[in-house]
Amino acid sequence: MNADVKYVIQLNKKPRQRKKDRVFVVEGPKMYAELPESLLIKTYVSDSFAREEKNEKILKKHPFEVVKDSVFEQMSDTKTPQGILAVAKQLSYKTDDLLGGDSGEKPFLLVLDTIQDPGNLGTMMRAGEAAGVTGILMNQETVDMYNPKVIRSTMGALYRMPFVYTDHLADTLKELKKEGIRLYAAHLKGERAYDREDYSSACAFLIGNEANGLSREVASLADTYIKIPMRGQVESLNAAVAASVLAFEAARQRRNLTK
Amino acid sequence: MNADVKYVIQLNKKPRQRKKDRVFVVEGPKMYAELPESLLIKTYVSDSFAREEKNEKILKKHPFEVVKDSVFEQMSDTKTPQGILAVAKQLSYKTDDLLGGDSGEKPFLLVLDTIQDPGNLGTMMRAGEAAGVTGILMNQETVDMYNPKVIRSTMGALYRMPFVYTDHLADTLKELKKEGIRLYAAHLKGERAYDREDYSSACAFLIGNEANGLSREVASLADTYIKIPMRGQVESLNAAVAASVLAFEAARQRRNLTK
Repeated sequence: MNADVKYVIQLNKKPRQRKKDRVFVVEGPKMYAELPESLLIKTYVSDSFAREEKNEKILKKHPFEVVKDSVFEQMSDTKTPQGILAVAKQLSYKTDDLLGGDSGEKPFLLVLDTIQDPGNLGTMMRAGEAAGVTGILMNQETVDMYNPKVIRSTMGALYRMPFVYTDHLADTLKELKKEGIRLYAAHLKGERAYDREDYSSACAFLIGNEANGLSREVASLADTYIKIPMRGQVESLNAAVAASVLAFEAARQRRNLTK
Repeated sequence: MNADVKYVIQLNKKPRQRKKDRVFVVEGPKMYAELPESLLIKTYVSDSFAREEKNEKILKKHPFEVVKDSVFEQMSDTKTPQGILAVAKQLSYKTDDLLGGDSGEKPFLLVLDTIQDPGNLGTMMRAGEAAGVTGILMNQETVDMYNPKVIRSTMGALYRMPFVYTDHLADTLKELKKEGIRLYAAHLKGERAYDREDYSSACAFLIGNEANGLSREVASLADTYIKIPMRGQVESLNAAVAASVLAFEAARQRRNLTK
């Protein structure tokens, strides 16, 4: 097996390798087409992808290496490979980048404490962008944003939504509080219904692990515990659903303010 | 391979087999413990599950068959089997059962048009129960509710939320309209923001396929097209996220009405 091929397989499978080299793998025509040019390192396409006429346009922009279909299948992380992938540089943000910059938007963060499911993380980033979230802060125990499944489920939001992994989530949250950002913890023990709070000022929602919720230390930093009132016998919501319901309530309030 | 073992494998893999026999497979201690007794047909446990003391309680209620761990692994649909599964009878509802019955709740339906992702379907059922949805109506092209991945992601809502697969979704929707249920279609071309409508009366949200949205015929039956306003460059929301945002807006309105 060619060293390049081996390397791509490693990058797809090993978070540590991605982190060490500060690169990741982008797969599929859509995610490839949206990849910012400055991040592109190398493009690989399958034999049959290269030969299809409709792919001429996407292949015109950058040099690429053609590999046999069978080889591409090995490189791909998906069961039905789409024939194009690239190695790309990771993005790099600081905590300040999460605050909305000069967009005129009040800071509006999602804070993720040990989210484990790749689909949940990607879905939260996609829904977060749509709701106007200004950035995502995570602890190191949260699944890697450059995990191939996470990348796919962001549907491109990965390139646009600032995100930071912090070594000390509690310390970073204390800094955010000092900057006037109010922390709301979605908590089963929350007493206030989430729609009874005002999210028009700088705010952040703390979202906990799928099975265990927020760690005690992180939960203790919240300014307000809120709950999403639930009917029936459901014990909890899926983490991405909870984050989306909260984020779109904030979006609703912020939108209706400006009307 | 024992015929029982083969049968369970078939049931996990083949929707047609499940449909023909009107049974399904329940896996894991949580889903097993919540299974209504009237549905249970046969329980299987792995050798090591049967020997663990902490499992005595769950095994006291019904007869069970013990199989070798290696055999159980074959029967299981998961990578890390939890040691207990059961064959169970499918539930059976009519369209009328989706309307809230004598709960005093106004009808509040999710209508799913060709939802393909098992995780999405299960998540919608779980979130729907929490939001007070009274029933789920689907076309036959929607993924099977008894797909093992769907079952897992319902987190037990499967046993409590009425659901119906209809052969002719458009016809069933026409019947619902005659009963006074207002149909809201989440549509990229919707002009009214979803939170500007009143969902306190009998209503249903039409949710379309992950890639292609609602079919034309179904969309044309909607009384009102709504949109979830989106920031950034996101093209659409994940189907389960969209359904949840809409359902929890309806829940919010209905809750605040009674205060």
